[in-house]
Amino acid sequence: MPTKILPGAKAAESYPLLIKQIFASAGRFEPDNEIIYRGETRFSYRSFRQRVQQLANALKAAGVQAGDTVAVMDWDSHRYLECYFAVPMLGAILHHVNIRLSPEQIAYTMNHAEDKLVLVHDDFIPLVEQLDGHLSTVNGYIRLTDQAGSQAVGNISFVGEYETLLRAEEPVCEFPDFDEDSIATTFYTTGTTGNPKGVFFSHRQLVLHTLNMVGMLGSYAGLPLLRSDSVYMPITPMFHVHAWGVPYAAVMLNCTQVYPGRYEPDMLVNLIHEYNVTFSHCVPTILQMLLGCESGKEAHFDNWKILIGGSALPQGLAKAAMDKGADIYCAYGMSETCPLLTVTHLNQEQRALPIDKQLKYRTLTGVASNMVDLTITEANGSLAAHDGEAVGEITVQAPWLTQGYFKETEKQEELWEGGRLHTGDVASIHENGFVEIKDRIKDVIKTGGEWLSSIELENLISQHEGVAAVAVVGVPDDKWGERPFAMVVPKNETLTQEALQQHLIQYVDSGHISKWAIPDQIRMVDDIPKTSVGKINKKEIRALLA
Amino acid sequence: MPTKILPGAKAAESYPLLIKQIFASAGRFEPDNEIIYRGETRFSYRSFRQRVQQLANALKAAGVQAGDTVAVMDWDSHRYLECYFAVPMLGAILHHVNIRLSPEQIAYTMNHAEDKLVLVHDDFIPLVEQLDGHLSTVNGYIRLTDQAGSQAVGNISFVGEYETLLRAEEPVCEFPDFDEDSIATTFYTTGTTGNPKGVFFSHRQLVLHTLNMVGMLGSYAGLPLLRSDSVYMPITPMFHVHAWGVPYAAVMLNCTQVYPGRYEPDMLVNLIHEYNVTFSHCVPTILQMLLGCESGKEAHFDNWKILIGGSALPQGLAKAAMDKGADIYCAYGMSETCPLLTVTHLNQEQRALPIDKQLKYRTLTGVASNMVDLTITEANGSLAAHDGEAVGEITVQAPWLTQGYFKETEKQEELWEGGRLHTGDVASIHENGFVEIKDRIKDVIKTGGEWLSSIELENLISQHEGVAAVAVVGVPDDKWGERPFAMVVPKNETLTQEALQQHLIQYVDSGHISKWAIPDQIRMVDDIPKTSVGKINKKEIRALLA
Repeated sequence: MPTKILPGAKAAESYPLLIKQIFASAGRFEPDNEIIYRGETRFSYRSFRQRVQQLANALKAAGVQAGDTVAVMDWDSHRYLECYFAVPMLGAILHHVNIRLSPEQIAYTMNHAEDKLVLVHDDFIPLVEQLDGHLSTVNGYIRLTDQAGSQAVGNISFVGEYETLLRAEEPVCEFPDFDEDSIATTFYTTGTTGNPKGVFFSHRQLVLHTLNMVGMLGSYAGLPLLRSDSVYMPITPMFHVHAWGVPYAAVMLNCTQVYPGRYEPDMLVNLIHEYNVTFSHCVPTILQMLLGCESGKEAHFDNWKILIGGSALPQGLAKAAMDKGADIYCAYGMSETCPLLTVTHLNQEQRALPIDKQLKYRTLTGVASNMVDLTITEANGSLAAHDGEAVGEITVQAPWLTQGYFKETEKQEELWEGGRLHTGDVASIHENGFVEIKDRIKDVIKTGGEWLSSIELENLISQHEGVAAVAVVGVPDDKWGERPFAMVVPKNETLTQEALQQHLIQYVDSGHISKWAIPDQIRMVDDIPKTSVGKINKKEIRALLA
Repeated sequence: MPTKILPGAKAAESYPLLIKQIFASAGRFEPDNEIIYRGETRFSYRSFRQRVQQLANALKAAGVQAGDTVAVMDWDSHRYLECYFAVPMLGAILHHVNIRLSPEQIAYTMNHAEDKLVLVHDDFIPLVEQLDGHLSTVNGYIRLTDQAGSQAVGNISFVGEYETLLRAEEPVCEFPDFDEDSIATTFYTTGTTGNPKGVFFSHRQLVLHTLNMVGMLGSYAGLPLLRSDSVYMPITPMFHVHAWGVPYAAVMLNCTQVYPGRYEPDMLVNLIHEYNVTFSHCVPTILQMLLGCESGKEAHFDNWKILIGGSALPQGLAKAAMDKGADIYCAYGMSETCPLLTVTHLNQEQRALPIDKQLKYRTLTGVASNMVDLTITEANGSLAAHDGEAVGEITVQAPWLTQGYFKETEKQEELWEGGRLHTGDVASIHENGFVEIKDRIKDVIKTGGEWLSSIELENLISQHEGVAAVAVVGVPDDKWGERPFAMVVPKNETLTQEALQQHLIQYVDSGHISKWAIPDQIRMVDDIPKTSVGKINKKEIRALLA
């Protein structure tokens, strides 16, 4: 395209999109708002600005240079938030270590990412001691502790303790300009096959993701989740896809923020009430834990908006949360997508519906965000219609998608086959733009020549009052190719396979599912295998059944 | 800086920031919201999507190619809004013709911008006839009319009439990808010396300006001006710095939008009430016209937020508007800056003040927007303190500043001297970040070795109840270098120079101004000279006095 690109003034300097511009907004609007850690530590945005600059100076003193990778092993904390800024603003790369992986996998990711300096919380010192001989690139550790003045346990030799190092530094640091495509963050996806794969995000991508999130979550009447007067607490780990990118948006907004440390359900519920938390995000499993824990059973959540992602939200769980006053929204994204792709937006018509009618829309994954080009592609490569019926794989393009997997040439070409990012999710898109995820391509049950969504079946089974949790997978079948198999955690011992099959017949009668969708086998279990991020581990279930 | 930039998948295509991504959000959230023209024409975002694509096809049929410049001469209309999208999305450049310039200047800008096709409203046909022989690059006209079915008056030969051309086209157009640095828009600044200068903005710049504005104006509790449920009507012409960029943001938000055509004060007031307009922006002169017109005198504006820019808002005028229920905010920017640089943000403390105490903050120009790096530089080049006292020239860096002046090598280097854009405005910055514009560098009155702000004096004089309007300039003085000279439009004939001098003494007594700031000469006049965009024309006043 021979468009016109004009020469600017020689002196006009390009203005790269850099995380330091997000940081520049910290405290610009509400300098007295606070950042709170577990209710124990709290300080204003004025202090936050100083602490980040002190941290940057401490990291420089510890030898961190542009291009280096700095790893963090911590629970959700103000320290982690400070690292979100100080590390990339030095031109270094922040590796969010997934501390829920196995020790072998953690060592793999740290070597693969070429971590140089590691900030490690006391709770992970035993783990680091175990890994230490296996880490080939690490040359220093900084200790993160919640016990001021205490000595570290174990044999790791530390550069110093975080707070002590900060106190020794000036609260002023000049952050340099550099190429906006410089990598700012990396972390590893918990793929179900092979080694974890490293995704990476640039300064440009994170700034665009943040700018978009600030508008998307605040300026739409059908989606007022996060504004400058919100109180935000993540309940998706900060090592997991930048806690969905919300901490960056919350800093730009100058929100009050509450970081809960290690997730303890009763403590989370108490923090929500003590600090009037208005917005959190989590996976369905965590929501269930919160509602079911001691404090949660008694509690109401009248000013709490909760954004659910990571896996499908069963309508039963959504209703339970809404009955307790929580305002429920869903979003969709993945490690590869920074993550925001879609989020619930109720239009005027939907907002006017009674709450129980809204449930349908609130448990779908919403509409594509601004700047996101999301389509569904049928097996033959043609675009599927947006009629709520046709299904296809979701492929996307957006300004904040990982451009590949670190040092995985073949896998990254698969991810980007044909110039769009393949999500591996199968969905339909309704006429009003709502995306309905049907399943993972690999979890779809192919039975009798048709595709049957394992998630849809889980949703229907979960609506039986005796069901606490459910997982459905396809198992090989000589006659039909595959047949659905359900694993159910019953609320009490009276629940039977026959009762559940009977329960499903109503959906056959209403035309919602076919008769052959009813599982022949339903097994009652005590627990359903989960992945490190709390999703149902279907790979493990299939292996158990094989 | 040796940061790390990683190779992505070969198949991963870059995702340039393009105006078509703003367009992709049109109707995504609220498809039934409407775009309304003068109360006569109204259609939904669904139709808007189709009309923009029809327009693009019509432009292609008229020979428009990527890199061409297409000019528009229209009042504020739905058609203009459609051009904001269709022209740049084809890779062409939209020239917003400043129809308030003199015919000679208009011809100059159209030749200088190399306009090829011109969309011209009936009201400007006589002007175009006058210019026709002098336009060296134009090879076609499209007629814009509010009189469906009427014949054009005059001798211009048209490619066709806008609505007729649209009806003939399919409502589907594939918009190509291209370099995000491609120029999307151009327009000419009304400089006070020499020929108008052409500024230019790229797709990337407009997308970033829009993304930022969507968050900035909607997600901050101290600044809730524009959200998806707002009703927006511009009262700054669409040819003037993209109507401050708000139409792009309003489309991304799916707001209801009202375009008023030619500004007629009574009609504007009526549109505000008929459509429950919640947000507008304008210069102080227009606000004064609205409050003072027949309909405005009687009216209340209880749901109307108005953003003031272009020149300083006198506290007296702000109070008059607030007494009628309007919610007043100020912003600062200029043609060269796309324009958003600063906007009123009241923090929690300021929001808690009674309205009359808020007035002080509301009439300052607010704090720097997200993504804007704004500093004040003293004459010696050093950064001035942010203490509300020190003054300096505002220089800025942001992702949406014109990179130069089209074909003006020398002037663009002056603009960007030292790698920052020089605004030519003198200001102080308060500790809370509020920017207080003191004056244009060239309007500052240099008297007795001190700088005296002409705007501050105007503000103080305007607070006398007998003053309808006031302008202050510096006039040469043998003894003091310069002395202030005030030109006042009195509300009635009883106002005297002595009364105004007496009025100013209270500010001397309170230490607000020095005794020598009181003008020796105050002239009562019927009218104050204005520029084409409604600002006080101090150049003309100085010429009158010379």
